[in-house]
Amino acid sequence: MMPTLTKRNWRVIAQQMEQIVGKSGVVWTPEELLVFECDGLTSYKQRPALAVLPRTTEEVSRVLALCYREGLPFVARGSGTGLSGGALPVEGCVLVVTARMNRILAVDLDNRQVVVQPGVINNWVTQAVSGAGFYYAPDPSSQSICSIGGNVAENSGGVHCLKYGVTTNHVLGLKLVLPDGEVVDVGGRVPETPGYDLAGVFVGSEGTLGIATEITLRLLKSAESIRVLLADFAAIEEAGAAVTAIIAAGIVPGGMEIMDNLSINAVEDVVATDCYPRDAGAILLVEVDGLAVEVEAASARVEALCLEAGARAVRTATDPAERLKLWKGRKAAFAAMGQRAPNYYVQDGVIPRTKLQFVLQQIELLSEKHGYPVANVFHAGDGNLHPLILYDGRIAGELEKVELLGGEILKLCVAVGGSISGEHGIGAEKRCYMSDMFTPADLETMQWVRTVFDPKGLANPTKLFPTPRTCGEAARAESTARFPTVERF
Amino acid sequence: MMPTLTKRNWRVIAQQMEQIVGKSGVVWTPEELLVFECDGLTSYKQRPALAVLPRTTEEVSRVLALCYREGLPFVARGSGTGLSGGALPVEGCVLVVTARMNRILAVDLDNRQVVVQPGVINNWVTQAVSGAGFYYAPDPSSQSICSIGGNVAENSGGVHCLKYGVTTNHVLGLKLVLPDGEVVDVGGRVPETPGYDLAGVFVGSEGTLGIATEITLRLLKSAESIRVLLADFAAIEEAGAAVTAIIAAGIVPGGMEIMDNLSINAVEDVVATDCYPRDAGAILLVEVDGLAVEVEAASARVEALCLEAGARAVRTATDPAERLKLWKGRKAAFAAMGQRAPNYYVQDGVIPRTKLQFVLQQIELLSEKHGYPVANVFHAGDGNLHPLILYDGRIAGELEKVELLGGEILKLCVAVGGSISGEHGIGAEKRCYMSDMFTPADLETMQWVRTVFDPKGLANPTKLFPTPRTCGEAARAESTARFPTVERF
Repeated sequence: MMPTLTKRNWRVIAQQMEQIVGKSGVVWTPEELLVFECDGLTSYKQRPALAVLPRTTEEVSRVLALCYREGLPFVARGSGTGLSGGALPVEGCVLVVTARMNRILAVDLDNRQVVVQPGVINNWVTQAVSGAGFYYAPDPSSQSICSIGGNVAENSGGVHCLKYGVTTNHVLGLKLVLPDGEVVDVGGRVPETPGYDLAGVFVGSEGTLGIATEITLRLLKSAESIRVLLADFAAIEEAGAAVTAIIAAGIVPGGMEIMDNLSINAVEDVVATDCYPRDAGAILLVEVDGLAVEVEAASARVEALCLEAGARAVRTATDPAERLKLWKGRKAAFAAMGQRAPNYYVQDGVIPRTKLQFVLQQIELLSEKHGYPVANVFHAGDGNLHPLILYDGRIAGELEKVELLGGEILKLCVAVGGSISGEHGIGAEKRCYMSDMFTPADLETMQWVRTVFDPKGLANPTKLFPTPRTCGEAARAESTARFPTVERF
Repeated sequence: MMPTLTKRNWRVIAQQMEQIVGKSGVVWTPEELLVFECDGLTSYKQRPALAVLPRTTEEVSRVLALCYREGLPFVARGSGTGLSGGALPVEGCVLVVTARMNRILAVDLDNRQVVVQPGVINNWVTQAVSGAGFYYAPDPSSQSICSIGGNVAENSGGVHCLKYGVTTNHVLGLKLVLPDGEVVDVGGRVPETPGYDLAGVFVGSEGTLGIATEITLRLLKSAESIRVLLADFAAIEEAGAAVTAIIAAGIVPGGMEIMDNLSINAVEDVVATDCYPRDAGAILLVEVDGLAVEVEAASARVEALCLEAGARAVRTATDPAERLKLWKGRKAAFAAMGQRAPNYYVQDGVIPRTKLQFVLQQIELLSEKHGYPVANVFHAGDGNLHPLILYDGRIAGELEKVELLGGEILKLCVAVGGSISGEHGIGAEKRCYMSDMFTPADLETMQWVRTVFDPKGLANPTKLFPTPRTCGEAARAESTARFPTVERF
């Protein structure tokens, strides 16, 4: 499928692209393309054949139509902060970079929605409407640099998704450019539209169905009051029990995060919050939001439940600066790991909340078995784990061993009825584990849906699904071997 | 496409079906089939060739495989309470009735989910878990008789969907039998699963993609406290303004319903609640739920906002019996219309909340122009209108005129940026209006998705999408003419 264009052919393609997006919108010298050769999953690298930076839906449409005509694979890229290699170029591809599609097209506060281009940064949405008392809920840790288009592709989550849902719960409608250049609208301005929920299919499709060029997002009203509680536990099991008790009490906090001892100490070494007790087995951060009276009552209840579960102390913050201070360490947790090891490999499994204790014990055993420290930082409320495996990538062969450990953690998540991705996506990284979670018939049904949008298989090929070439095994190959090329027109 | 089997051929099919589901599971004498010839949209009637009542996924799979082999169209039917003719049989079809698939297969309170067969009645789910303090949120007015399978097909809503979302927000996973008999699983037990959100596509697909045989539903914790407020307004515009003010204040009530003067009087004539003031231009019912302190504060705020918007009085109910009394009239509203006219035709449009006043005025003008009274009962919080057009179906030609008025109301909803269905679905009734809401490219993309699941077009054919045969116009025909039959295998 990969095209084998000569250098001269590519020059012609580049010139045609320039006619669409202008000279400044095409990048194709090897030096300039260097910055595009990976996303946040920096261990995977591939230079694209050329990068194109369109500004409008029409330009995207013409770029994709050209790719379609020439049979060129394309990969969409927002800010390149993804953690599963979703925006990793494939060999001989056109990289469609949305960085110049960075306009907020409409703000409709009465109907609580905004329309944005895909290159708009997550934080900008809230900044544009916070003066009027609104915000955009999904808040991945990378929210100050990641793009809404990327959030849509990966169905991004964040700390507050426990209460407010992930990206798919906040996307009302999408203008899409399909891989043949056709422009369609899915979803709409009101929450319920008839017909198949194609907006729902597109969100989380990891660039394999086309490119969203206009995204209608739902806004929420800022809470009247917010309070953050930090509970200090001698043992991580107690923190887990507190989470269960809080949910069982009918309280749905805005966010509920656990960090283990290793994470706490890494964070204190780097950002010195002075709030995270270094001798704690785990801390639990709980954010409660809502009406002032509600927050008052719920946070008192949360505090009591934490103490009942064995917390040694509970600290509460109400004013913004103090709240930020309690969150600071959690937000810096991934970055802080850099102090502990030259590299870390982050996993993103989901488990039923009730399996938390069992799975944490198993991860500890796996950590010992493989000989790599694993730090646990996670969205405890929705069972979304982020084990961080620490290693030294300068030693040859280490990454492969660490990926093996990561894979065993994923299989563990599946075994207890969970999922191999909560919010980071499958991308290039986890495609070979899809067969652990889905039957061949399940995967085949998804592949068939893909052909509807992408009959030539040009949109982010080799991502998301296992293929014989990437995953190797005969059994896995079988699930896609029967999958023919369907011509759409 | 419709098969032209002889009576003898059908006898053979019936015998083969009996081998799958047993003698008691096949209905094919004309007298017995009478009960299956329509659903809640009683003005449309068509007798199926035969009805089959399977009990298990395997039986459904074998029934559909037989239909596939013989090229027979099939229509799934739950309780037959749908209002858009989604379960209306098509000529020469096999009706697959899920009434005997009525078991709750698993209750997992720790993870707040249940697994049910499609024939389970909506209310049964809550009844099964209410003792432990849980409930199933989507609550269509028909909840005491409608089936979960039907709710999934139509993506049903209800009074409490303003705060808690519609069916799609409560379905975690589905076991599906595809139209060729293949069994696949979509979604899962945890909220986030990777790959395309095919569970999301299936919910609301109105029987056109296959049959769900196991449905994993999310449960919610029952609220600690519930309060219902009834505000009495001289003019419906004031009630609308109160809705806007409540939402703008950051309060999301469990439900927020408006009934106009005509509805109030119809209801009082029939169920005599003695709470609904007959001289009111409109009443607004607001249900506030949550922690006790939260409910206390929020309901005081709601009351103040209603009075500010011009309410003549606000009545509040806290204890269950009193709350039920305030809701009683709303729940009986549709049925009560039987007193006012021999027939009513209910529409189900959605509009941006901000267009409420304009749209209500326009509906009044349309009512005058066409000469039929229109009663308005609606989910005000989410802009989901249910205009009830009163008429006498015994007079020939009246239904057609009333449908014309209904169509104008739908076009009005689309014109202000809304939708032609909020929760009742498109079914047989509104398919010709899909072209008012979607472009040919949008509809074609949906049709292509359909071929993935249903390559032979056997699952509930002629529903949901406009076809030349049903909608007639050349322009509409065009959108499906390019749509070929794709063989899946």
